[in-house]
Amino acid sequence: MNQLNATHDPALKSWVVSANQPDTDFPIQNLPYAVFASKDAAHDFRVGVGIGDQILDLRALASLAPFKGEAAQALSACKYNNLNALMALNTSLWSALRSELSQSLARGSSRKELLQQLLLPQSDAIYGLPAQIGDYTDFYISLHHASAVGKQFRPDNPLLPNYKWVPIGYHGRASSINVSGHSFTRPMGQMRPEAEGAEPRVGPCERLDYELELGIFIGNGNPQGRRIPIEDAESHIFGLCLLNDWSARDIQAWEYQPLGPFLAKNFASTISPWVISYEALLPFRIPYERSPSDPQPLPYLSSETASALDIKLEVWLSTEQSRARGLEPAYLASSNFKDAYWNIAQLISHHTINGCNLRAGDLLGTGTLSGPESGQEGSLLEMTKGGNQALHLPWGEERRFLEDGDEVIFKASCQKDHYPRIGFGKCRATVMPT
Amino acid sequence: MNQLNATHDPALKSWVVSANQPDTDFPIQNLPYAVFASKDAAHDFRVGVGIGDQILDLRALASLAPFKGEAAQALSACKYNNLNALMALNTSLWSALRSELSQSLARGSSRKELLQQLLLPQSDAIYGLPAQIGDYTDFYISLHHASAVGKQFRPDNPLLPNYKWVPIGYHGRASSINVSGHSFTRPMGQMRPEAEGAEPRVGPCERLDYELELGIFIGNGNPQGRRIPIEDAESHIFGLCLLNDWSARDIQAWEYQPLGPFLAKNFASTISPWVISYEALLPFRIPYERSPSDPQPLPYLSSETASALDIKLEVWLSTEQSRARGLEPAYLASSNFKDAYWNIAQLISHHTINGCNLRAGDLLGTGTLSGPESGQEGSLLEMTKGGNQALHLPWGEERRFLEDGDEVIFKASCQKDHYPRIGFGKCRATVMPT
Repeated sequence: MNQLNATHDPALKSWVVSANQPDTDFPIQNLPYAVFASKDAAHDFRVGVGIGDQILDLRALASLAPFKGEAAQALSACKYNNLNALMALNTSLWSALRSELSQSLARGSSRKELLQQLLLPQSDAIYGLPAQIGDYTDFYISLHHASAVGKQFRPDNPLLPNYKWVPIGYHGRASSINVSGHSFTRPMGQMRPEAEGAEPRVGPCERLDYELELGIFIGNGNPQGRRIPIEDAESHIFGLCLLNDWSARDIQAWEYQPLGPFLAKNFASTISPWVISYEALLPFRIPYERSPSDPQPLPYLSSETASALDIKLEVWLSTEQSRARGLEPAYLASSNFKDAYWNIAQLISHHTINGCNLRAGDLLGTGTLSGPESGQEGSLLEMTKGGNQALHLPWGEERRFLEDGDEVIFKASCQKDHYPRIGFGKCRATVMPT
Repeated sequence: MNQLNATHDPALKSWVVSANQPDTDFPIQNLPYAVFASKDAAHDFRVGVGIGDQILDLRALASLAPFKGEAAQALSACKYNNLNALMALNTSLWSALRSELSQSLARGSSRKELLQQLLLPQSDAIYGLPAQIGDYTDFYISLHHASAVGKQFRPDNPLLPNYKWVPIGYHGRASSINVSGHSFTRPMGQMRPEAEGAEPRVGPCERLDYELELGIFIGNGNPQGRRIPIEDAESHIFGLCLLNDWSARDIQAWEYQPLGPFLAKNFASTISPWVISYEALLPFRIPYERSPSDPQPLPYLSSETASALDIKLEVWLSTEQSRARGLEPAYLASSNFKDAYWNIAQLISHHTINGCNLRAGDLLGTGTLSGPESGQEGSLLEMTKGGNQALHLPWGEERRFLEDGDEVIFKASCQKDHYPRIGFGKCRATVMPT
């Protein structure tokens, strides 16, 4: 389990020509899953796998039953309009399917003729949510983000005493998670009174922000009452996507005590359509280490094998004005998942220590991924120091928080020498007026 | 909509004799819904309606198609193994079905012979969750609870400045909600270090508690981005049940800042199997009033018509010892929903002010319902002053928090002169060792 294998051969090329371009997100070493429909039949969602600029229709492939054994079993879980059945399997079955897909899409495959008919250009597709998300949990695993934001919410007490011991998390809203490409209305809400003793203000959020996160889709879950030990935790990861945890900072500041964020977050969240399987990310695992000045993880959060991931994330912004002028989006910041204080295995192990049951298709958010340096902020709150320093966009506009018409675009990719670039696609959405 | 009608006639009697007993929870004026199976065919869950000590099988009734118009449409939404399809309809359809069920179960009905074959004694049934719960939100609407608990968590600052303006709520875990009658293992978790600078403790929770709540099942929801005005909010209530929001106080105290409770709550929650329709509760609406010393609700939370409900709740406890000795459970406390600071319409209106979409089958918890007086505490934390004053059980045992083998039983009912008692059934579950 979790070993590199023939699907990770960096020399492997596909007969889908676009998959061999150096700038593609989806070389044959990636093979991300999505739920898609053809624009011509927009309600007929099905499971597919990305290859170059094409999507291979796995529902159609399943009906041809080309594989045997475990791969066939996994492929038959791809007949539905979400990935939950596939997610509910296990690493051995996921790996068997990946192996057959890789061989079938590789140059020289005898299945080329069969599969060619099952490809749809990504430009002709629309996407659905990859899974029916039963529960969505958001964590808070970037020490850099927690410190920077803590300073603004609690100047005297930025990092609370539990932070370095507890992977802090809370439950978010599943119903308002959308797939990339949507727009949403600026939330209304209650905000802190302007003067002590005055009534709270009610109106459209004035401090609307994005949060740059990764989402982790849980594969096979655990029965209620039985925890997942950290040694087994990585085998419960199906895959990763991009996640924008839109946040209304003014609503949050007023509502969040004592039970945490609620309406400041649950109006909308956005995820990218493509789920990058954990197996595709294995070449980018790196050792997880704690700074010697920080406490070592408690035994239930300690593992010799659990690893960090080297995934670079980026934030881009376009505005009504930039689009009207035909300009490209502006690059805002970038960070890396490897700078997080906690790793995924720790999140899963912590989430279940009390017997809480995870289910296939559950989504864990990492929390905002910010790095230690300037230019690595995962939110405007951090970039603009709570709205105090304007951000200057290349076309002359300024931003402290998001304005109506702004489109935020997240990207992510894994890169290293002599290995094809593993991209995540894009996670984008647009703010509409209240 | 929301008018009393013939189904509320206090003189109405049923041909199901047990429904006419004064101590029944389920007179013909109640007609609560549940998802049940016969013990003989324990996986074949279906929708039913309670009448006296019997359940009328609505899936079987739907196959006979005895009703016309709106009642027929609503009955055909009862063919599934959960109530979501029925919940997704509207007050007019719910009311039409209730009216036909009431007439069919009333003394003298020509449908008696037909329906008699579709009854199952409740003693021969097992229950499932009434709905597939997409999202579960827990509120905090008892000022008495918030003040008492706030005093223990934040002695200097018991009631936060937002409390009287914001119906405080947060998202809870849907996957670990169980139906009454289950048992669950005492959660493990991290707890505050015993001394400053020491490591946190990890082990079984030592301060396990119940929370006496009502659950509100959302009927028809709202599209994302469109709020539910308070005037319309009550029409989105399908019905109410009992809810035990089990809480690990020691885990909560250490983890809850800054993002709220997480593992302290998500190991298990329990709801009663019976959903009391909002229409059945209409006779127990009472005017909602704010004390003149408290701020009046903000306009989006103000309504001339939104009402409070007079529902009495009770907590009972049995232990391994009491059961071994054949003793009845001990009565611990009782409170009333009418003492809550916020009403249901306010919760719905607040939840959606930012455009958050509610879906049919979503569950809202009220938060612990405690009253102003001693004996009206909705949790042990309050009864024992944070574990400082032992509670003496009639058979000689003491409790500060829950012990392994303890079974907590909630009951609720609505009572007033000249009207049959509307009961909620029971919500019970047992703590097992870690």
